[in-house]
Amino acid sequence: MTPTYRNAGVDLDAADHSVRRIGPAVRSTWTDKVVGEFGGFAAGLTLPSGLIEPVLMLSTDGVGTKAEVARRAGMLDGLGSDLVAMCVDDLAAVGATPIAMTDYIAIGKLDPTVVDRLVGSIAGACREAGIALLGGETAEHPGVLAPDQFDLAGTALGVVERGAEIDGSAVRPGDRIVGIESPNLRSNGFSLIRATILEQSDLFDTLPGTDLSLAEELLAPSIVYAPAVEDLVARLRPNALAHITGGGLPGNVARILPQSVTAIIRPRLWPRPAIFNALASAVDVEEAEMFRTFNMGVGFVVITAPEDAERAVQSLAQTGHRAWEIGDIVDGGDGVRIEGVL
Amino acid sequence: MTPTYRNAGVDLDAADHSVRRIGPAVRSTWTDKVVGEFGGFAAGLTLPSGLIEPVLMLSTDGVGTKAEVARRAGMLDGLGSDLVAMCVDDLAAVGATPIAMTDYIAIGKLDPTVVDRLVGSIAGACREAGIALLGGETAEHPGVLAPDQFDLAGTALGVVERGAEIDGSAVRPGDRIVGIESPNLRSNGFSLIRATILEQSDLFDTLPGTDLSLAEELLAPSIVYAPAVEDLVARLRPNALAHITGGGLPGNVARILPQSVTAIIRPRLWPRPAIFNALASAVDVEEAEMFRTFNMGVGFVVITAPEDAERAVQSLAQTGHRAWEIGDIVDGGDGVRIEGVL
Repeated sequence: MTPTYRNAGVDLDAADHSVRRIGPAVRSTWTDKVVGEFGGFAAGLTLPSGLIEPVLMLSTDGVGTKAEVARRAGMLDGLGSDLVAMCVDDLAAVGATPIAMTDYIAIGKLDPTVVDRLVGSIAGACREAGIALLGGETAEHPGVLAPDQFDLAGTALGVVERGAEIDGSAVRPGDRIVGIESPNLRSNGFSLIRATILEQSDLFDTLPGTDLSLAEELLAPSIVYAPAVEDLVARLRPNALAHITGGGLPGNVARILPQSVTAIIRPRLWPRPAIFNALASAVDVEEAEMFRTFNMGVGFVVITAPEDAERAVQSLAQTGHRAWEIGDIVDGGDGVRIEGVL
Repeated sequence: MTPTYRNAGVDLDAADHSVRRIGPAVRSTWTDKVVGEFGGFAAGLTLPSGLIEPVLMLSTDGVGTKAEVARRAGMLDGLGSDLVAMCVDDLAAVGATPIAMTDYIAIGKLDPTVVDRLVGSIAGACREAGIALLGGETAEHPGVLAPDQFDLAGTALGVVERGAEIDGSAVRPGDRIVGIESPNLRSNGFSLIRATILEQSDLFDTLPGTDLSLAEELLAPSIVYAPAVEDLVARLRPNALAHITGGGLPGNVARILPQSVTAIIRPRLWPRPAIFNALASAVDVEEAEMFRTFNMGVGFVVITAPEDAERAVQSLAQTGHRAWEIGDIVDGGDGVRIEGVL
C-alpha cells in the first residue's frame, strides 16, 4: 500500500465533504453584519453600531471531558450549548457583548456525521445567543486520540465600550450577591465524575435521588447567560459579574473581588439541584470539595449595590432565569466564605 | 483516599500556579492598546486607528500532530511560531491585519514547566508578529490524553477596512503567481510522517540527504508571513493571497481562484528544500501526494497583475523573505495544475 495521507489517517476528501456538509448550519448563524464567504481563509463581521471606542475581547474555552462522557453516552447534541456558554459567558462577565465565535474540534478519525452533529449543535446555540459562527477548525489526530474520541473548544469575540468594562473594582461593603440558577453541572467537574461515579455506575442507570439517568443528568446542556446578563447590565449597572466555572463559587467570585472586602455566600439561600446531592452521596465527596469543583446550582453571579439587588432578580426573571440573593459583601479582605462550608 | 478533583487528575492549585507563572510572558505581548488585567475573565484591546468601517475576522487553527512529534523529541520551543503562523497567516490571506490571539492547550496532566514553555514560545512569536496574546485556556484531560500528551490550538483576531478584503475575485488570466519560501514543513503532513518515516526511524537519526536530525528538520518552526504580507498589501494590492496549509498548493490555491481560470504552477521555478526530497525517498510517497500533503517549499502564495510580480518579489526580499514567480493564471476553469505532477 503506497503511503498516502489517507492511509496515515488524515482524509482530506472526508474533510472537504465535512466542510461542505456543515456549511448550511454555519451560515444559518450569519446576520447581515457578516462579511465574506464560507470556505474562504477567514470570514468577518462589522461592529455593532453606536460604539465610540470599542474594546474587542476574546475568550477561549473548551467543554473539557464532558465531551468524553457525551461520546460514551452517544449524546452529543447538548455540547454546542456547553461550548457557547463557556466562551460567551466569560465575555458577559466583563460586561462585553459577544458577537461571534469559532470552534475547534480535534478528533481521532474524521466522521462527518459526528462533526455535523457537533457543529449543528454549536450553530444552534449561536443562533439562540445571537452570535455568528464565523468559522472553525476540524483536525484529525490519528494515533493521539482514539478514532471516535474528540475534543471541543472555541473562542468568542465580544465588544464593549471603553470604560464600560465591569471588573469588580466598584464592589463595596454592603453590596448584595445575586446568583443565577444553573440546574446542572454546566461543563465543569467531569474528570472528578469520570474518576468516581462513572467507575462504579452505568451511564444509563437512574441517578439515585433524581428522575433521570446519570447520562441525562450529567449531559444536560449549559444555560447561556450572556443575553440575559447583557440585558441586566443595560438596565442597572452591576458592580461585578462572575461566570462560575472551574474552581466553583469560591474560585470565581474571588477573581473579581477587591482585596479589601469579603464575599459571604449562604448556601441555605438557594435550592440545591438534586444532582449535586446525588453526586455528593454517590461519591462521598466533602462539601468544601463539592463547592470548589461544581457550581452547586449557581452558574453566574451578579454583585450589585444593595438597592439594586431586588431589581436584578426581577430583571433576570423577565428574561427567563431564576435568581436569588445568595449573600453579601462585608468589610475586610478575606476572599470568599461559603457559610458552613469553607 | 477521599475523592477530590486533584485525585481525579485535575489540580486547580497547579492550574493557579501555572497561570501565575505564564503571566509575565503573556503580558510581554501587551501594547498600550490592551485594556484589562491578566487573570480576569477576559482582556481586550482597542482597534488600530484610522479605520472607517472595520471588519473583524477570526481564524482558528492548531498545530496538529506536530505537537506529538515535538513531545516525543522533547523540542517544544518552536511550536509557538507554528501556532501563531497557522492562525495569523490565514488572516493575512484575506488582507486582514492580525492584532491579537488566544491559545488553547489540552494536556493529560498539567505540568507547569511544559505549559510555561509552550506559552513562552507562543508569546515570543506574538511579540515578533506584533500581536497581543490576550488570554487562553489550559485544560487537563486526564484519561483522554496520556499525562504528557498535549494539543495546541489558537484563535487570531484580525481587522480589515470594509471593501479592502482580498478574496481572489480580482484574479485575471495573465496574472502571475508568486511563491514565498517555506524552508520546512510548517505544521502540516505530520500524521503521514508519523505513520511512515517515524515508524522506521529514530527522531535523532540524521535525515539522509540533509545535515540535520529528523527531529530538527521536522520541528523547524514555521515562518510567520503576516507582517511581510501586510507590508506587501500596503505597497501593491495583490489580486489574491493563499496560505499553504493542509491540501498543499493545489488545495489552497484552489480556494481563492475564480471558476473561470486555471492556475499553472511550475515546480522547476523554485528550489525544493532538501527535506521534501528526503521525505519522498524515505517513505516512497508519490509526487502528487507530496504536493497535496506538504507545502513543497512554498508556504504562502501571492497572485498579482503581471506588471506587479517583480515588485512583489523585491518587496518580499526587503522584508526578509525569498520569493519566486512560480507560475501564472490562464483562461478557462480547470482549478490548479502542478506542471508535470497533477
